Amino acid sequence: MAKYLTNRDENYAQWYNDLVIKADLAENSVVRGCMVIKPYGYAIWEKIQATLDKMFKATGHVNAYFPLFIPKSFFSKEAKHVEGFAKECAIVTHYRLKNDETGNGIMVDPSAKLEEELIIRPTSETIIWNSYKNWIRSYRDLPLLINQWANVVRWEMRTRLFLRTTEFLWQEGHTAHATREEAVEETERMINVYADFAENYMALPVVKGYKSENERFAGAIDTYAIEALMQDGKGLQTGTSHFLGQNFAKAFDVQFTDKTGKLEYVWATSWGLSTRCIGALIMAHADNHGLVLPPLLAPIQVVIIPIYKNAEQLNSITDTAKRIKSDLEENGISVKYDDRDTNKPGWKFSDYELKGVPVRIAIGPRDVENNTIETARRDTLEKETIQASRTVDHVKRLLDEIQKNIFRKASEFKKENTWYVDKWDEFVDIIENRGGFIMAHWDGTGATEEKIKEETKATIRCIPFNSPEEDGKCIYTGKPSARRVLFARSY
Amino acid sequence: MAKYLTNRDENYAQWYNDLVIKADLAENSVVRGCMVIKPYGYAIWEKIQATLDKMFKATGHVNAYFPLFIPKSFFSKEAKHVEGFAKECAIVTHYRLKNDETGNGIMVDPSAKLEEELIIRPTSETIIWNSYKNWIRSYRDLPLLINQWANVVRWEMRTRLFLRTTEFLWQEGHTAHATREEAVEETERMINVYADFAENYMALPVVKGYKSENERFAGAIDTYAIEALMQDGKGLQTGTSHFLGQNFAKAFDVQFTDKTGKLEYVWATSWGLSTRCIGALIMAHADNHGLVLPPLLAPIQVVIIPIYKNAEQLNSITDTAKRIKSDLEENGISVKYDDRDTNKPGWKFSDYELKGVPVRIAIGPRDVENNTIETARRDTLEKETIQASRTVDHVKRLLDEIQKNIFRKASEFKKENTWYVDKWDEFVDIIENRGGFIMAHWDGTGATEEKIKEETKATIRCIPFNSPEEDGKCIYTGKPSARRVLFARSY
Repeated sequence: MAKYLTNRDENYAQWYNDLVIKADLAENSVVRGCMVIKPYGYAIWEKIQATLDKMFKATGHVNAYFPLFIPKSFFSKEAKHVEGFAKECAIVTHYRLKNDETGNGIMVDPSAKLEEELIIRPTSETIIWNSYKNWIRSYRDLPLLINQWANVVRWEMRTRLFLRTTEFLWQEGHTAHATREEAVEETERMINVYADFAENYMALPVVKGYKSENERFAGAIDTYAIEALMQDGKGLQTGTSHFLGQNFAKAFDVQFTDKTGKLEYVWATSWGLSTRCIGALIMAHADNHGLVLPPLLAPIQVVIIPIYKNAEQLNSITDTAKRIKSDLEENGISVKYDDRDTNKPGWKFSDYELKGVPVRIAIGPRDVENNTIETARRDTLEKETIQASRTVDHVKRLLDEIQKNIFRKASEFKKENTWYVDKWDEFVDIIENRGGFIMAHWDGTGATEEKIKEETKATIRCIPFNSPEEDGKCIYTGKPSARRVLFARSY
Repeated sequence: MAKYLTNRDENYAQWYNDLVIKADLAENSVVRGCMVIKPYGYAIWEKIQATLDKMFKATGHVNAYFPLFIPKSFFSKEAKHVEGFAKECAIVTHYRLKNDETGNGIMVDPSAKLEEELIIRPTSETIIWNSYKNWIRSYRDLPLLINQWANVVRWEMRTRLFLRTTEFLWQEGHTAHATREEAVEETERMINVYADFAENYMALPVVKGYKSENERFAGAIDTYAIEALMQDGKGLQTGTSHFLGQNFAKAFDVQFTDKTGKLEYVWATSWGLSTRCIGALIMAHADNHGLVLPPLLAPIQVVIIPIYKNAEQLNSITDTAKRIKSDLEENGISVKYDDRDTNKPGWKFSDYELKGVPVRIAIGPRDVENNTIETARRDTLEKETIQASRTVDHVKRLLDEIQKNIFRKASEFKKENTWYVDKWDEFVDIIENRGGFIMAHWDGTGATEEKIKEETKATIRCIPFNSPEEDGKCIYTGKPSARRVLFARSY
């Protein structure tokens, strides 16, 4: 193989890290916990952005941009919000450097100290609601449906590429509504948009549900989340949508005159999805050969590789390859023709497998003679030789099949690794030895949740929307419970 | 009028500020010097981004993302770079807040002090070249053609919406090349891309040229810029492209093995364009009625306004309007149908004029009867009544004409306000009393440039590429000069 990849079954964590580095997605920077997203990784993010942005606009949202900095005092305005974020903030205290008088380079100029420190946004509710205060007067100004694409910073102590980084890229929607009902409806609408995106673009089956109080967003009345299962049996939350009630409206005094002339506090939601979901994309589908990208989010959907011994052969292959490339591109398919002479075909095959390109086309001199091409699909590694004239239809079908197949595979994996458990011993055993999603009864208290976490490192990932009412006993305390909730270890 | 706008000729600065606020483009935030870009302003930025991003990709560039934070020590590595940026840096010194023990909210936790302070990027050469060090080994790794869309922070003391803000959005290209020639070629290519964008999309005629040494980017060997003339006679730089030589390669020790096996330092360029250009867009075209947006960058190209007295009339108008809207949209034209009943047509007319929407269509009951519509173009305010069946062709033609007309108008303005001056008195008189671009001889010294700036506030905006060789005497010192350079007061 071109680049050595740790075996997934031997060391999952190392396999993941190897893959991110070797597929050229991202790397750690010199700044603690901050990553550099390399062009190939960023191209996936651009696809994610373009897709989601269309979905947000189709549901009536517009984009805007709010400041990176949040005055320290804003944080204290919503009590739970500050509790949740104060411990992981990057804080700007000065605004000038100067020459170090002892001759050792430059130093922070102590005379350029800010009167009030500024926090780099870990999330933007406070700065945004402070703006909304001036934008909202009457029910006519509502709803306000705004999204922001931005970088945010949370000073994480233990970081991993894409999954948990000090700085990350995301989108954060912040909406304002006249009624509780509308805000709840929006919260639901957006978790459904995320689930739609996860399942139909990322090919990632997800469980939609409520977060338990312990796991709620700091400042939310209710948090909805989508939870996906990774191949190592851990859960990964890929998007959240929060019903914020009137908490931020009260903290920032945002009131409006309703249709009857009465002054009311505004109802809020916020929802976000980040570069973290690239981590989910990798961990859900990739194998020992490398990434397996869903065609709808793959920066390169088809790679064409010439197989030749001399310049003459290359020339005639290039003619065919260019024609095929332009035919495919006319059909909206992104294609790369890799005719670099610095690497052998075998090296290229491995490299594009590593990079998860869904379809590979190889063309040799005999193919040119016979008017054929060889296709290989990344998900099953199956090869086929077909008539060149059939290329467009065949590739379209392959892309469609791959998209469906990896979703099906992930769905089966999830089904096979979701356990309905009623005994604590079994719960512990599965968590320790098999992993996966456990559907179990819970007494509804934070204390029990905390104890289960201490003993097994498993947490309540969500209370699934579709979990039916069912009499049962808490897996840990035996106290009565009305429905099962979803437990797992998680990223 | 719906919203009062200061007269442009009475108080240009106030007119500009009014316009930005009242057209709902942006507003100042509570954080000193930071703006909130509101949805309508951000939609213009999205158009700019989409257009430029295509142009960058068509010239072989890819996007990536580098950290927001730069270790303080990186700055000192390139001597001129630190000199240029050290005085306007936001500096992160701590990473945690805690409860203030005296009970006054929260405070910075003194125990969470960073060992090395982090600078919020004012530009990313240093952090990027530190990454390139690991990416470049051989000539095969070159050229590296990378762009980044990001936010940056420069602690400006005097800020103005869009034109100069503490935080702003921009793109920064950073390329690495094997030879000086290739890097110079890239520097030229990108200033040409910017000029193409300015003239053909922003409808903004520009002068391309070199910066004098005083005005060069901190760390560059050569800076190319495009300079546009605003309606108040001041210049505004809307994009720059820097030839960085081997300065950053040497500072970060980035060497490669060339084809002959020799170790060489890498050659670099960087180039950027920011949200500042929205300021240029406004100041170049807008009038006392409001914005005049070039159709190619207008978020809404056509607005349809119904004129009605009762629900029955509105219904039949809506039928027509919706048909027209979908016909136009099928032709790739963005259309808003504003049937809000909260505002009168006259108010809407003014409001969309204020917002610079290129074409307005009004439809009344008589229009429905006669199968006509009324169009109004924003640039000339001319109205026409046409057969509804001709709408698509007519609107297409109007959009095309408006785009060309505002470019022509701006070009004429620039021509009329470019002065070839040989006497100092005249120079001072024009700068003081008329404004505009002055083409004058200069002795080539920074000292003279500095004195001219002190006496007139005019600086050398650029040394135009197309300024012919011509014997002359410096406008200020009378010393010999070989070509004219472009002077102006500027933003």
